[in-house]
Parts: sequence; C-alpha cells; structure tokens
Amino acid sequence: MGGQQQNFSSWLTERAQHAETVLERFLPEAGLQPERLHQAMRYAVLGAGKRVRAALVYAAGEASVGSGGVLSPAQCIALDHAAAAVELIHAYSLVHDDLPCMDDDALRRGRPTVHVQFDEATAMLAGDALQPLAFELLAQMPIAPALIVQATEVLARAAGSLGMAGGQAIDCASVGLALSQEQLQIMHGMKTGAMLQASVVLGGIVAGASSPTRTALESYAEAVGLAFQVVDDILDVTSDTSVLGKTAGKDAADNKPTFVSLLGLEGSRELLVVLRQEAQTALLPLGQAAGRLLEVADFIVGRDR
Amino acid sequence: MGGQQQNFSSWLTERAQHAETVLERFLPEAGLQPERLHQAMRYAVLGAGKRVRAALVYAAGEASVGSGGVLSPAQCIALDHAAAAVELIHAYSLVHDDLPCMDDDALRRGRPTVHVQFDEATAMLAGDALQPLAFELLAQMPIAPALIVQATEVLARAAGSLGMAGGQAIDCASVGLALSQEQLQIMHGMKTGAMLQASVVLGGIVAGASSPTRTALESYAEAVGLAFQVVDDILDVTSDTSVLGKTAGKDAADNKPTFVSLLGLEGSRELLVVLRQEAQTALLPLGQAAGRLLEVADFIVGRDR
Repeated sequence: MGGQQQNFSSWLTERAQHAETVLERFLPEAGLQPERLHQAMRYAVLGAGKRVRAALVYAAGEASVGSGGVLSPAQCIALDHAAAAVELIHAYSLVHDDLPCMDDDALRRGRPTVHVQFDEATAMLAGDALQPLAFELLAQMPIAPALIVQATEVLARAAGSLGMAGGQAIDCASVGLALSQEQLQIMHGMKTGAMLQASVVLGGIVAGASSPTRTALESYAEAVGLAFQVVDDILDVTSDTSVLGKTAGKDAADNKPTFVSLLGLEGSRELLVVLRQEAQTALLPLGQAAGRLLEVADFIVGRDR
Repeated sequence: MGGQQQNFSSWLTERAQHAETVLERFLPEAGLQPERLHQAMRYAVLGAGKRVRAALVYAAGEASVGSGGVLSPAQCIALDHAAAAVELIHAYSLVHDDLPCMDDDALRRGRPTVHVQFDEATAMLAGDALQPLAFELLAQMPIAPALIVQATEVLARAAGSLGMAGGQAIDCASVGLALSQEQLQIMHGMKTGAMLQASVVLGGIVAGASSPTRTALESYAEAVGLAFQVVDDILDVTSDTSVLGKTAGKDAADNKPTFVSLLGLEGSRELLVVLRQEAQTALLPLGQAAGRLLEVADFIVGRDR
C-alpha cells in the first residue's frame, strides 16, 4: 500500500493508477455483448477522473489498521473492490447528471459526455448498469460476510434518496431559488458528501475499524465532503474551462445557488479553513495512522481542478 | 405464508397485497425530504403491478423448505425484503424504460408514466434511487450474512449489463432489425428473464435451498422467464390498451422484433406449451413443495394482461 514515508503526491498518483488498473479489470470487456453498452460503461469510468474517492478508501483503510499495523492481502483486495465500487457509483452519477433532462452538459473531464459520445439511451443504461456492478464488487470482497453486509448497507444508503440521488433531486429543484447556507450544506452533504463519506467509512469497514475509529472517520468525512463542494464552487468561478475539464461558469449561467453566490469568494475560502480544521480535529484520536487521510483533505482543499 | 390447501387465486391475491404492504413500509414516506423524489418513487412502485416477481420469491421460499417444512419468522421477514427488492428493481426499470430517450411511453399500468406525472429529471432520479434501496433491503435481511452476500450478488448480476440493463440495451439496438429466435431469446432472457430468475433464486437462498434445489429453481425460472416474454408479445397483439393498462400494439408500431413477428401467433402459443412443460419437468425433484411455483408458471402462461 506504500508506507507513510512515501510523499503524498507520488502516493496519490500510484493509488490513482492502481485504481485505474483495478477498474479496467472489473469492468466488462469492450468486446463482450452488448458491446456498445460495455464500451459506454468503460468510457464513462476509465481514463479520467482524479480518483479522490478511491484514494479516500485506501487512506481510510491504512488509518484503520493503526500505526505500525499492516493490511492483510485479503484486506488489500477488498479495498480494491471498495475503491472500484465508489468510483463506479460516482461515474454513473456523472453520466446521468450530464444528460439533457438534467444538467445537459456536453463536456466532462475534457471529453464529450457519454450521451454525446454514444446516445442518450446508451448513457442512461450505462449508468443503470454501473450501479449494480458496484454492489456486485462489494459482494465479492474476500472478507467476513458480516463486513460485506455492513459495507453494502453503507454504499446503498449513500447512493440512495437520502444520499446522492436525493441531493441531486434537491439540486434540480433549487435552480433559481435562494437557498440558505444550511439548505445548501444539506443539499451538498447529500449530493457529494454522502459518497465521499461512504468512501471513508467503507475503507474503515474493510480494514476492521473499531467503533470509535469509525466515528472519527465519519466526522472527518463530513468536513471533507463539504470542503470538496466549496472548492468545486470556487473553481467554477475562478477557473477556465480548459483547466477544469468541464464547462466553467456553468452554475452561475444555470442560476444555481452555490457557496460563492451565497458567501462570496472570500467567505467561501474562510469556510474552507474552518472545514480543514474540523477534518484535522476529527482525526486526532487516530494519531500518526491518519497521516494520509489528512493529506487527502489538504489535497481536496488545495486542488485547482 | 398460507398452506398448499389455499387455492392459488386467493394465495396470489393475498401475497400481492402483502407485498404491497411491505413495499409501502419500506419506501421512504412521501412527506420526507426530498418530497418530490419520494413521491415519485412511491408512485412508481405502489398501487399497481401484478407482483409476479414477489410471488416467485415467496413460492420459491415455500418450495425450498420442502414438503412439511416451515419457514422461520426470520426467513419470512427476509422473504419480504427479497420480494420488495425485486419489485423495486423491476419498478425502476419500467420508469427508465418509459422515458423519452427510451420507449417514450405515456401510459403504464393504466396510469400516466412517472415522467409524465412528474418530470423527466425526477423520473430518472427516482429510478436511480430505487435501485440502491433494493440492495439496502437485502443487506437488512435477518438471516446469515453469508446468505445475504449470495443474494446481493445474484440481484446485482441480474440487474446489470449481463442481465436486465444489458437486455434493454440489446432491445434498443435491435429496433428495425430482423433477429433470429435465438437472438430474441438471448435478449429477453437478459431483459426480463434475468430478474424473474433472480426472484426465484433469491427465494431459494433466503429459505436455505440446497444446491440441487437451486439448480432446479434456476431451470424452472429460465423457462418461466421466457414464457413471460412470449405472453407479453402475444398480448401486445391480441389485447386492447384498456385491458393491458399500457399502449397495445406498440411493439409492432415501433418495429420491434417479437416472438409473434418471428413465429406468428400459433407458433408463439406452441412455444408456450413447450416452456410450460420445461418448467414442470424442472420442478419434479422438488415434489409437492413446488406446487405453488408450478401454479405461478400456469398463471404467467395464462394471464390476459
């Protein structure tokens, strides 16, 4: 998994490449029938993406075995499955989010979106098929079935109507509305935060985290999930489309409430500092073992795309 | 669960009503945020539907404990979860299937489809949120975690790109094409058959079916799944929209290959007789305990809507 001595940037690159290899292996081959669907699924998932969610799974796994602890080979494989599962759910949500009936976006990660590259029906079905593949991967983890069941429940809740899909629904319904900071936080806590939190908790479950460790991971993940969205909103205003890899300024054009429209750029940056502090405080009980998780938080806060 | 002495019609009605009650309880309340999404999820699932898949789960559960065997209270609860899970997956697939980018259908079960009653974005998200709810319900079954993991894998495969979603993709791609009977069977085996088969297998898993029993259940389910589609194709030609509750004659209008377009009405009816016989033969090893399953097969073959 790479020890603490490895610097963060090379660790993150190595984990992202590893996640890519794992996803490549778990996705149905492009030549397998139905070919067009499988090609769309692979297009939606592979070759792009920062793999932040996968990194959170791995970092939480490392944090949960404690300082000096070592993950078993089975736990490493299970972390691969969990990391792939959260990336698949994330990828499916982007495919559906980009469809004409939702955000109607033509560009994602610097490439044509799935419905532009293929067609709307294929994009919808690719998303529909990525979701059960995530649950299949969890079911195939080589760890205690009781842990698999816990992981399944965590992922299902995070993806569902009280998590990601629900946040998306609130987001759709809030176009043109003036939301309070609390409403905006609830929406993003569901839309983006729930799956980031699930990534962290899944890493903990797979690595056999104790109950206090899981609680610490959840608090950390809540702060990081919100920070992620605040950064997204800032970048939507301050970045070029070419750097961002998706259409910049789209939220403002769509009249969507964002942290920047609510708090301004300075206020949003101040909120980030507070959230970064919350994430750090949450991890204190885990000591040195949580080093990578804190570095991931810093990466999320400091990213420029 | 109702004994073998209860006649089939009243058993089916009772099971369908029971499944409705169970679904009503498992679905998020309509007043819970995000309300519109939850209302759409409930609209998509409740108040209609023949609950054939739920009936298959229950009948397979009865068949798997053997003659004179009794399901434990925990197994009965687990069967409720499994029955609800397959109905949720089925309901989500109908919602997405009816969307403008797919079949673009305005009528389903005699009512406006979800995107007509609500809107396209809400319909898509309702489908997206019903899917993880199904996996959450499996994770919450009060049975051995190892059985839950098996059930999760079965449902995930049946819903995925080599099952229902894949069959849907082939169906979309085959409009206007002349498929062979084999190609048509493969497509429907994935699109409709996979989930019917999963319903039967889930009932077996929950009730602790032995390996030979599971094999028998799978053969039975394969025949029944195909029979179901053949009947659908016959009804599309022979029924009125008012009886069918969905737009009759739509497949022909859409230039979709069907068993009737391939084999004619008589040929399709002959195929049904063969499939009914296959289902019966598959169940022979299970003896009396499989009585309900055979009755469900007869119901599927004989239904008029």
